[in-house]
Amino acid sequence: MTHPIIESFLRHSIERKDYQVVRQFLEEFQPADLCDLIQQEPLPTALDILKFLSYERRASVFGYLPNTLQEQLAAEMSDDDVSLLLKHMDADEGADLLNLLPEERHDGVLRSIAKKEREDLRRLASHSEGTAGAIMTSDYAAIPAHVKVSEALNIVRTTAPGAETIYQIFVTDGQHQLLGTVSLRELILAPQTVKIQDIMTTDIVTVSVDAAQEDAAKTISRYDLLALPVIDSESRLVGIITYDDAMDVAEAEATEDMHKSATIGNLEGNFRDARLLTLYRKRIVWLILLVFGNLFSGAGIAFFEDTIAAYVVLVFFLPVLVGSGGNAGSQAATLVIRGLATGDVDLKDWGRLLGRELVIASGLGLTMAIAISMVGHFRGGDEIALVVGLSMVSIVIVGSLVGMCLPFILNRLGWDPATASAPLVTTIADSAGVLIYFSIATAILGLPV
Amino acid sequence: MTHPIIESFLRHSIERKDYQVVRQFLEEFQPADLCDLIQQEPLPTALDILKFLSYERRASVFGYLPNTLQEQLAAEMSDDDVSLLLKHMDADEGADLLNLLPEERHDGVLRSIAKKEREDLRRLASHSEGTAGAIMTSDYAAIPAHVKVSEALNIVRTTAPGAETIYQIFVTDGQHQLLGTVSLRELILAPQTVKIQDIMTTDIVTVSVDAAQEDAAKTISRYDLLALPVIDSESRLVGIITYDDAMDVAEAEATEDMHKSATIGNLEGNFRDARLLTLYRKRIVWLILLVFGNLFSGAGIAFFEDTIAAYVVLVFFLPVLVGSGGNAGSQAATLVIRGLATGDVDLKDWGRLLGRELVIASGLGLTMAIAISMVGHFRGGDEIALVVGLSMVSIVIVGSLVGMCLPFILNRLGWDPATASAPLVTTIADSAGVLIYFSIATAILGLPV
Repeated sequence: MTHPIIESFLRHSIERKDYQVVRQFLEEFQPADLCDLIQQEPLPTALDILKFLSYERRASVFGYLPNTLQEQLAAEMSDDDVSLLLKHMDADEGADLLNLLPEERHDGVLRSIAKKEREDLRRLASHSEGTAGAIMTSDYAAIPAHVKVSEALNIVRTTAPGAETIYQIFVTDGQHQLLGTVSLRELILAPQTVKIQDIMTTDIVTVSVDAAQEDAAKTISRYDLLALPVIDSESRLVGIITYDDAMDVAEAEATEDMHKSATIGNLEGNFRDARLLTLYRKRIVWLILLVFGNLFSGAGIAFFEDTIAAYVVLVFFLPVLVGSGGNAGSQAATLVIRGLATGDVDLKDWGRLLGRELVIASGLGLTMAIAISMVGHFRGGDEIALVVGLSMVSIVIVGSLVGMCLPFILNRLGWDPATASAPLVTTIADSAGVLIYFSIATAILGLPV
Repeated sequence: MTHPIIESFLRHSIERKDYQVVRQFLEEFQPADLCDLIQQEPLPTALDILKFLSYERRASVFGYLPNTLQEQLAAEMSDDDVSLLLKHMDADEGADLLNLLPEERHDGVLRSIAKKEREDLRRLASHSEGTAGAIMTSDYAAIPAHVKVSEALNIVRTTAPGAETIYQIFVTDGQHQLLGTVSLRELILAPQTVKIQDIMTTDIVTVSVDAAQEDAAKTISRYDLLALPVIDSESRLVGIITYDDAMDVAEAEATEDMHKSATIGNLEGNFRDARLLTLYRKRIVWLILLVFGNLFSGAGIAFFEDTIAAYVVLVFFLPVLVGSGGNAGSQAATLVIRGLATGDVDLKDWGRLLGRELVIASGLGLTMAIAISMVGHFRGGDEIALVVGLSMVSIVIVGSLVGMCLPFILNRLGWDPATASAPLVTTIADSAGVLIYFSIATAILGLPV
């Protein structure tokens, strides 16, 4: 959305101190686009651009920036500047920023913030990462149950400027217990004299403050909510999670799962800007584990050295046979992992899915066996054709079952099913494939083990 | 969310004709939960349950159901019943349902629907699948620019029951040109006598009716929109896409990309309920292609038969060496593919990412080479250790570069970068690995090719 010409114009104007021009120019941008612009500039220019924005826009743009950049920028700012940001940011984003600051700056940046907001920020910042509490905001619109619609609208009007959304309004009692919800749409349409308790919805979907944030995001998506109320262990309303945060969580979760599917550790922030050492560390762990896993295949091959020496043509088919088992297994694992992540598949479906996979894998294996047998026939004769055909069916079935079961087994062990990555499934299927192939070969070709 | 006891109670009550009880009982459910319940029942019971719901709830629940089930249920319903559904469904969901019906039923089900709505439905149903037009709804709230806030609120109140959202209101002129937007929040807060044209936002993010729906979803997520206006080629407002539809699109896109990463074709609907033959067809295509791809590795091995015969120990290291190249390559490909999908990575970053990958892959390769050299030393002596160590570094670097470049190359050829699946990268890396390994071995061990 940005462009080199825009950037050079901007830098030029800043250097020439055409502040009026800069300000006018920056007014034109959407916050998300300004965020792109800032990310592409060196730190001092980024700080300059921020300074030209009104407090509200500055806070909004700052909240959009990736954590690493927020951290770098905040390190260059005075306590007063950070304080100004915190005052104008949404409470949930402010709490995230507070968490990025070194502990010793907390008192300094919070000093000039009003007591209630300060306590809010500290409380929001205290929830552990990955929980609903860590992404919720305390800026919600709340009304009592006994007021009339007209009074409720007045309360909303008064609290609106601070609230993250006023389209979903929460009905609470004096002890912050959540009694019901009412949408602004309902308030607008209802007769002005009706009491809130007579129109509010009492059948409310909530999430616990300790719940995983992906569960909160899934709930929002499942029930098409604008905002999901978050309650503590005593059913008190402590915050809300809005749909836009749920979208971000869902995207981050999908990214994490895709990375896991290729044995990449959880990478926070943008891949393009990640540090080289971080990327190295996120990738090396599983690569090394798989090196040792793959040695089993090697050991299997070594065990059948005599068979290989007698029929060197067998080695020609080794990569395609073991590779096919891994490929079919990766397909099965991916289908299950994504199904579990979206909620399309449930853990209790395990038996049924296994039965279906057996049928499908047999079909896949047979088709591939026919293809490879023809190659086997031309390259090594009928016996070889039989060996590679039988091996293909068996290996594809075994590989598929490994891929289908592994996510469920890992889940049972308390691991993320997405850990059943394609490379892990492939490595296991490879070892199994070597054993199956050479066992069938030794049996049919009548060789000594 | 449902439970066998609930289901048996429900079926029992239907059989005993305790209709009052059934109705009361069904009232308790959220639409999304009712949808789960219906999916688990046989078709006749599902139809019964639907009949017990009020028209509004029936339409809302029906819209939640997967397409295949909607199709089956509609086939069992009379034209009048379907017509009732269409009348109460959101326009976008109604259009989808219309597309599921056989052409010859269209006139029948549309006959009793008012002319304007009928034309709306036909127009919405005419947009090709995958475009913004296909997921938009024409039920938006529109106001003219010259009215005062108080009048605008009255217009919104009148149109509210039909509109999918009234929180984002669109300002249009007599020719349906989009002039600006105003949020309900702004309307509520603004003085009643101000004119809309003085408070509306004119800097509007829009999407074309022909745009890909994932682009629309990305725009909604990027700018945190509640509703994105859709315009035709003459800048007329033709519909809106709401955030909840964007969430569904984003989830479906992530699923499609994950499936592609394991060579599974685009699977519509739920994997658990997909037909066996469909799953077979979605999986077999790439498996067969990869069978022939893997034959290259076999041919490579056959070419070096003499080397293998002289040093059978080399075969022991074959799986781990070629496997490592594929694993590192899959990691690189996945990082790029997901980065491109989320917009974190841009096509123009190609050169920079390649340079970074070269550094990281060298680091990964060296670490893995040290590990495998030690095994090589114990198993085959120093010369073998040198061969496998050197091969490891080279293979990991080549595999990583293949994984990094393939998505960009495919994109250049007009393919989806996600086609650079782990199995495809692995198959290419395998062939390269075989050649690299045995070339290094023949050179160092001084063997004839």
